[in-house]
Amino acid sequence: MNISKWITTENEELWLTEEDRDNLKISYRVKEIICEEQSPFQHLMIVDLFDFGPSLILGGVVQTTSFDGHIYNEMITHIPLVTYPNPQKVLIIGGGDCGAAREVAKYKEIERIDMVEIDEAVVRLCKQYMPEVSGNLSDPRVNFIFADGIEYVKAAQNEYDVIIIDSSDPVGPAVGLFHKEFYANVKKALKQDGIMVCQSESPLFYVQTLNNTRKSLKEIFQITHTYLAVVPTYPGGFWSFTLASDKHDPLIGQREWDKEAKYVNEGIVKSCFVLPGFIRNELDK
Amino acid sequence: MNISKWITTENEELWLTEEDRDNLKISYRVKEIICEEQSPFQHLMIVDLFDFGPSLILGGVVQTTSFDGHIYNEMITHIPLVTYPNPQKVLIIGGGDCGAAREVAKYKEIERIDMVEIDEAVVRLCKQYMPEVSGNLSDPRVNFIFADGIEYVKAAQNEYDVIIIDSSDPVGPAVGLFHKEFYANVKKALKQDGIMVCQSESPLFYVQTLNNTRKSLKEIFQITHTYLAVVPTYPGGFWSFTLASDKHDPLIGQREWDKEAKYVNEGIVKSCFVLPGFIRNELDK
Repeated sequence: MNISKWITTENEELWLTEEDRDNLKISYRVKEIICEEQSPFQHLMIVDLFDFGPSLILGGVVQTTSFDGHIYNEMITHIPLVTYPNPQKVLIIGGGDCGAAREVAKYKEIERIDMVEIDEAVVRLCKQYMPEVSGNLSDPRVNFIFADGIEYVKAAQNEYDVIIIDSSDPVGPAVGLFHKEFYANVKKALKQDGIMVCQSESPLFYVQTLNNTRKSLKEIFQITHTYLAVVPTYPGGFWSFTLASDKHDPLIGQREWDKEAKYVNEGIVKSCFVLPGFIRNELDK
Repeated sequence: MNISKWITTENEELWLTEEDRDNLKISYRVKEIICEEQSPFQHLMIVDLFDFGPSLILGGVVQTTSFDGHIYNEMITHIPLVTYPNPQKVLIIGGGDCGAAREVAKYKEIERIDMVEIDEAVVRLCKQYMPEVSGNLSDPRVNFIFADGIEYVKAAQNEYDVIIIDSSDPVGPAVGLFHKEFYANVKKALKQDGIMVCQSESPLFYVQTLNNTRKSLKEIFQITHTYLAVVPTYPGGFWSFTLASDKHDPLIGQREWDKEAKYVNEGIVKSCFVLPGFIRNELDK
């Protein structure tokens, strides 16, 4: 295999260096490049990183590692699901590493999990090479749809209890998943009391993206809350999610926490809404 | 000025690369090397980093940045101080960037703040070049003592309400600040109902250090609690602190939060004790 352009050799060691930021570079020591592929949408690799294990790399940027992929996937799913009283139909937009679907499948009462991912290569490689994250999904309730999530939600109406927007960063195929028109269609696809959640980027380095998301959602929904998780392999650690609904408010009512998870527990489902002062102060500016 | 060995030139840009970990490197783009000095204890630099501002670098490792130095300093001070009912005498061991002393000085009821730092160069450079962190301390209650903290606490008895151990990593001059004999002397230096707190390292990458600290403190004190903060420039984001006392338990009683701070607020003083499952599960193993 040709060594990918993002991987360099140094003293006989392989290193993957993320080059997407101007002023901060993170380099991971590579044990092995497991596979590399160019899909119609992006460049994909599964790389075994020292300390972090098999990891999904899109366009040279670490997306999910076996070490901490569970954090993001648990937080984007369990917080809305512990807030919605009796979820039966759930839609995941994106989420190609399958970790979100795996977490949603922990709710026995859910009848159907539609997962709309634009790039089937992400799903295929993660299922094959990252079972710690994807969970080797064979749950018959999970319905894979390889299509553009933006078009998919345009066609859906009053159908889902919970919609989870598990997008990559707002560059390339994911740009439209950060637009207000898309959120308006998500609302239309939700039942009247439905809940949506999206990843809303780093509250440290992309607070403007977070604030644009909050602004759009506040114009569309009655209730909007941002919550945080800490993902060690995301720069700065902190990551934000924003949840919106016309009916259900996680600060007013949540079901009792009774799932097995690695990051989320009965304390985290509430404390994740506590924002440090300097982040709270930047919101809605 | 000679360019320090930790700083390299790449496409006419200066980059500082931390080389202290085997499998993960973080590189910061450098605006300017403000000063560089070799003290009897360590190599020091103040470097202006893009995105992070003037930053203290010890032995090539980023210690405190103007961007996020307040997080660590607020968390190591306010959590014990909001737990102790009426603190009057406080001891800080280490804390050369002066940020901890600056936070402690926000409590008007405190009469004396003794700060024992082994390396006067850290204090001198941070006061001069990092006022965002050090606060240009001129509070007459702050009493600087340039000495070895280990020897200092040996001599103190029944004297302090709160002792804050603001050490660097357990290499070089800080090794002894992680030993059980030191904590026993800290207990002796505290009043009977006193509280001590120490930084107890990354709960992700140095959980054994955290667990050793917890084990030592549990053998010496009745009450021991670990809490977390997220410091973007520390690898993995999460950082741990461990608080111990024979009398005061922050989970049972805290004073009302009424200070101005950038990270800590009325929610954080409680939620910082909520540990994600995978960290909680590693404790005391």
